[in-house]
Amino acid sequence: MSWANALFRPRCVAVVGSVSEGKIGRVLIDQLLHGGFSDVVAVNPKRQGIDGVRAVSSFGDLPVGSRPVDLAVVATPAATVVDVLEDAGRAGVQVAVIITAGFAEAGHPAAEDRLVRAASQHGLRLIGPNCAGIVNTKWNLFPTLETRPPSGDVAFVSQSGALGGAVLSWAEEQGVGFSKFVSYGNGADLTDVDFLEALREDEETRVVALYIETISDGRAFLRAAADLAAVKPLIVIKSGRSDSGSRATLSHTGSMAGADAVFDAALRQSGAIRAAGIEEMFDLCRGFTMLPAVEGRRLAIVTNSGGPAVLAADRAETSGLRVDPPTDGLRDRLKDRLEPFCSTGNPIDLTVQATKDDYRDVLIDVLDEYDAALALNVNTPYLDSAPLACGVAEAARATGKPVAASFMAGVPARAALPVLRAAGVPNFATGERAVQVLAALAQRATCLALAKAERVSEATIASADSTMQPHISSRLLPWEGNPLEPEAMEWLETLGFPVIERRWVRAADEAATAARTFGRSIAMKAVSRSILHKTDVGGVILDVSSPDEAIGGFERLRAIGADDGVLITPMFRHAVEILVGLSTDLQFGPVIAVGSGGILTETMRDLSLRVAPVSRTEARRMIDELHGRPLLDGTRGLPPCDVDALTDVVVRVSRLALEYPDIRELDLNPIFCTEGGCAIADVRLLRFSQDNQEEDSP
Amino acid sequence: MSWANALFRPRCVAVVGSVSEGKIGRVLIDQLLHGGFSDVVAVNPKRQGIDGVRAVSSFGDLPVGSRPVDLAVVATPAATVVDVLEDAGRAGVQVAVIITAGFAEAGHPAAEDRLVRAASQHGLRLIGPNCAGIVNTKWNLFPTLETRPPSGDVAFVSQSGALGGAVLSWAEEQGVGFSKFVSYGNGADLTDVDFLEALREDEETRVVALYIETISDGRAFLRAAADLAAVKPLIVIKSGRSDSGSRATLSHTGSMAGADAVFDAALRQSGAIRAAGIEEMFDLCRGFTMLPAVEGRRLAIVTNSGGPAVLAADRAETSGLRVDPPTDGLRDRLKDRLEPFCSTGNPIDLTVQATKDDYRDVLIDVLDEYDAALALNVNTPYLDSAPLACGVAEAARATGKPVAASFMAGVPARAALPVLRAAGVPNFATGERAVQVLAALAQRATCLALAKAERVSEATIASADSTMQPHISSRLLPWEGNPLEPEAMEWLETLGFPVIERRWVRAADEAATAARTFGRSIAMKAVSRSILHKTDVGGVILDVSSPDEAIGGFERLRAIGADDGVLITPMFRHAVEILVGLSTDLQFGPVIAVGSGGILTETMRDLSLRVAPVSRTEARRMIDELHGRPLLDGTRGLPPCDVDALTDVVVRVSRLALEYPDIRELDLNPIFCTEGGCAIADVRLLRFSQDNQEEDSP
Repeated sequence: MSWANALFRPRCVAVVGSVSEGKIGRVLIDQLLHGGFSDVVAVNPKRQGIDGVRAVSSFGDLPVGSRPVDLAVVATPAATVVDVLEDAGRAGVQVAVIITAGFAEAGHPAAEDRLVRAASQHGLRLIGPNCAGIVNTKWNLFPTLETRPPSGDVAFVSQSGALGGAVLSWAEEQGVGFSKFVSYGNGADLTDVDFLEALREDEETRVVALYIETISDGRAFLRAAADLAAVKPLIVIKSGRSDSGSRATLSHTGSMAGADAVFDAALRQSGAIRAAGIEEMFDLCRGFTMLPAVEGRRLAIVTNSGGPAVLAADRAETSGLRVDPPTDGLRDRLKDRLEPFCSTGNPIDLTVQATKDDYRDVLIDVLDEYDAALALNVNTPYLDSAPLACGVAEAARATGKPVAASFMAGVPARAALPVLRAAGVPNFATGERAVQVLAALAQRATCLALAKAERVSEATIASADSTMQPHISSRLLPWEGNPLEPEAMEWLETLGFPVIERRWVRAADEAATAARTFGRSIAMKAVSRSILHKTDVGGVILDVSSPDEAIGGFERLRAIGADDGVLITPMFRHAVEILVGLSTDLQFGPVIAVGSGGILTETMRDLSLRVAPVSRTEARRMIDELHGRPLLDGTRGLPPCDVDALTDVVVRVSRLALEYPDIRELDLNPIFCTEGGCAIADVRLLRFSQDNQEEDSP
Repeated sequence: MSWANALFRPRCVAVVGSVSEGKIGRVLIDQLLHGGFSDVVAVNPKRQGIDGVRAVSSFGDLPVGSRPVDLAVVATPAATVVDVLEDAGRAGVQVAVIITAGFAEAGHPAAEDRLVRAASQHGLRLIGPNCAGIVNTKWNLFPTLETRPPSGDVAFVSQSGALGGAVLSWAEEQGVGFSKFVSYGNGADLTDVDFLEALREDEETRVVALYIETISDGRAFLRAAADLAAVKPLIVIKSGRSDSGSRATLSHTGSMAGADAVFDAALRQSGAIRAAGIEEMFDLCRGFTMLPAVEGRRLAIVTNSGGPAVLAADRAETSGLRVDPPTDGLRDRLKDRLEPFCSTGNPIDLTVQATKDDYRDVLIDVLDEYDAALALNVNTPYLDSAPLACGVAEAARATGKPVAASFMAGVPARAALPVLRAAGVPNFATGERAVQVLAALAQRATCLALAKAERVSEATIASADSTMQPHISSRLLPWEGNPLEPEAMEWLETLGFPVIERRWVRAADEAATAARTFGRSIAMKAVSRSILHKTDVGGVILDVSSPDEAIGGFERLRAIGADDGVLITPMFRHAVEILVGLSTDLQFGPVIAVGSGGILTETMRDLSLRVAPVSRTEARRMIDELHGRPLLDGTRGLPPCDVDALTDVVVRVSRLALEYPDIRELDLNPIFCTEGGCAIADVRLLRFSQDNQEEDSP
């Protein structure tokens, strides 16, 4: 029996802890019994049972031949939990859910380690400690302190027990049902990655929602999320975006949050969908469980009122859907059927006189042409909304296409809601929220289609696979410490990277010779281990146009500390400046960045990130995401740049991170991009310090 | 009696139209009577009254000496409305609310004009046609087809009747009460600006909310919005942001929507607050009516659960609030009072064991140091949320400081809601939404403080005043058509603008001479009336460094069509490129833009807009808003630019628009900004065509 089976489909459940009035053990037994699960045994020193639940003083006292206890739910004082686990493990219990708090989150990580060691000796797996329990509605299993939620297709996994509880309490009102719920608290043993893996296979779950503050292992999370997202939608709320958010996360869980931008990029790479908060999560769950796939981006809005339709159309366009006008043929058909004062553009306004038939027939008609529809209805006290909802429901059924509804608002719209729910048409508080969900569905369909297309090419499979499980042999950097810039350039060139033409000179006369050799304007840069930011100290001189100037420049650079000579490169005009870089994230390890380079890097923060390495397709996507992307196509009469060459650089830099694990940071900024290719013009490489590698490496 | 008084506090109301079962006249009378207003008279040919309401066949038949009818609500067929207005006008009715549709919105603008003409002959003012009626809860006055809303401090004005109705229906559930409601439909007579002016003075209204699709007159709207926002919060939902949104607006109201970015800038200038949709509008209304001013940006979050607090803290930081950690003193006091497992950072986590006293005492303590607090509570079925809400309410009362609450979620939190509402503590669905509102309150406090500070300086008064009511004498441009670039530069220089040094040459040898005179690299630009985009056709040559090259350049430019010679300017290196421009908005007239210049203009869309003219303070604010702002402070070792000089250019360009109303578009791009000042390096000026000025001008 797998741990997932023991956890979610136990034959018998033991509740360990006092079952006196007001005690947690009592609440757990009540929840189990009221939820319809009766194979329960109470374990407590007093052998106190309630409501016919039999009790034993320890697992060892369970009668031979009794139904095996697969799952123990533990709510005893913190100091006793190790013994409980030993006892349960010896008796063959397979999973323990530990509600008890007072471990790592309260500053006692050693106590938590003892739990894990005790359990692992017996092959006992743990949820928690410091958690709010679990739920499997399909097994009538509710060993939790929280509201028993309605049954449905969503599995919800929450690092925070309280937030999990809020979601369960809100579910009925939000019209979302759950298959499973897991609060995993400190995640001492089983954690985020394990649940993602288990839920991927779970046939009772069609959508997985996850609330996390920190992740246990960035790369493993990325892999598990991608595997899950390939077969069902994964919706993630990740808190701790801001500084103060991170601080709270820090104090809350005792571990460091990854930088939010990297997390965001990793989620996008995995195909998961990020929700900003609980309301958006509910909206997405409703949409993904109730609607068929949105196989395109053309949205029709059918309404009985202009105002809310315009708000929805606005949101649709900013969310990536297209509210295109109907074709002439469709428009003619609509004109034939509707009164002349109705608007037959898109939004299609049936006006306040809209009938059930209007909604049904118009929706059926437009869905012949559009990929999805939003049915908007603003009700007044003197209109009955239920028949209109029927019309919408009939159209959804007849076409099999995605139809979202927003019947507004308050009391007058209330009659419509059960009609829509019964027909499987999701209703949203506003049209804006409905289109946001439709856009997310369309986005997921696009991602799945792209992933499929990428699998077609063998070459892509290989590189996509290496993205997740890099089999790149690890090599050593050729220096002890951090290299000087010309050394790093030399090394990159040896590896086949396109580095700018250059002379590394140690004397003024060599500088003059170099200037003469290049025969055009040159740039001069100080080379020194002691200068960190060259430009801040005047360590870069541009537009040097004669050997004499070069001599003067050399002397000036020497004066400000160019101890290791001067690097001379030709000036590039009209090249597009791009940054490609590597950094090391504490959660995900090497991260590749592509951005608008030069001064734009600092001011515009025009940057695209991924966990490294990336495939060519992904590298190309990163480049395409930049605001500065049009510059590469040529502006002001310049020819387009060689984007293929740039893509190559991105792919290969991203693999560098895994070939050379000692690289902590690599900045290629700027890379000059032109019609003729790329030229890396500035290199900064920092390696992990060898003395305290343990400390520095992720 | 003002129209506003007659509309909102009529002595007697006439309902004009059939009162048979199911007819609109019947609904209106029912609504009036059920709402508690009994001075009603029915006007219809059959003299049909109901429920004791007396009836006459026309206004002329009203008995002499009867209570005067100040307000008529008209629901007769479209063709009859003119006669009704004539009749009502003759009888001394002061305002008519026309529910009847079928005018401009249905393609009959002439019919609508006839209404206005008929009414104005008698000094009768109109609301509508094609509207949903009005409400004044403080006068028990509900002549509307929509849900009668709860009474409160918010006045809501809606261009869309249906959307207005949705808001009224939702109000009870959202916990927002209304003083007044106006649906003004086509706005044939009284419209947005009139209501803003009237509500500014209305003592029963503390917050004004407005839903608009199009505005009647941009400048008048801006002035009225600013006047209102100076005395009470103005919350605006404006739809029609996107292309399809605008299209729907267009078909809906028969008038053209202004570009959304300009509208957004104008709203910011006026001090109004833009809401993205109805839910946000409700949130803001709840916050602004229930909370005192937020006089700073330091927010304390007091919670019983980490997860939702982190989500709220994240949102706070992105909304401009600061979730700073407590001072050492406060932290010590918190540590003394709370259990060791509570988090005394910020968010302050009282954990699930939080009591009423914990919430009260901790909130009182932190509000000594912070400007506002968010009290978060996540409830479970086994906790009673009402006492905890009491603790929050007591702290709000004791401190008088802004305290917002988010008690979550569903059934377990329901007991808390009436406690909070009774104590005047606004509750929000999520902590994120609560902080968004607190941030808006803080933003408004900042704006009011800034406006006050600006009023202190006499000089600023003058220029701020000129922003709203420009007394700039209008002058003529010195050319018939559009000027050539060197002509426009000459003209700007005459007006005192800093224009780049230049030579306008007509022959190759003049080009060589110019190159020699400048003695450094030059730029050469084709001058021609027929070339629209110089760079696209190779009409700009940069980095020309010798007289020979200049001769070659001249010939090349001549060959591609430089019919009017070549403009030669020195090359600027290391200058920051800025764009300053004027354009003409259909709603607001002249608009001033400042942006990152050169290639950044096209790719980064880093632009700040205002309705012209602007004061120095406002011009400076525009510059400070740019993402590229840090460039002006000097990067890569360059000295900071002369931002004062740039501010001057912005102010003076913005006034140019009013001095020379013939300017349709002016692009100064780039302006080279350096330590030494500004140099306008490229000018493009388009005037309104003189043939069809009527058509082109706003």
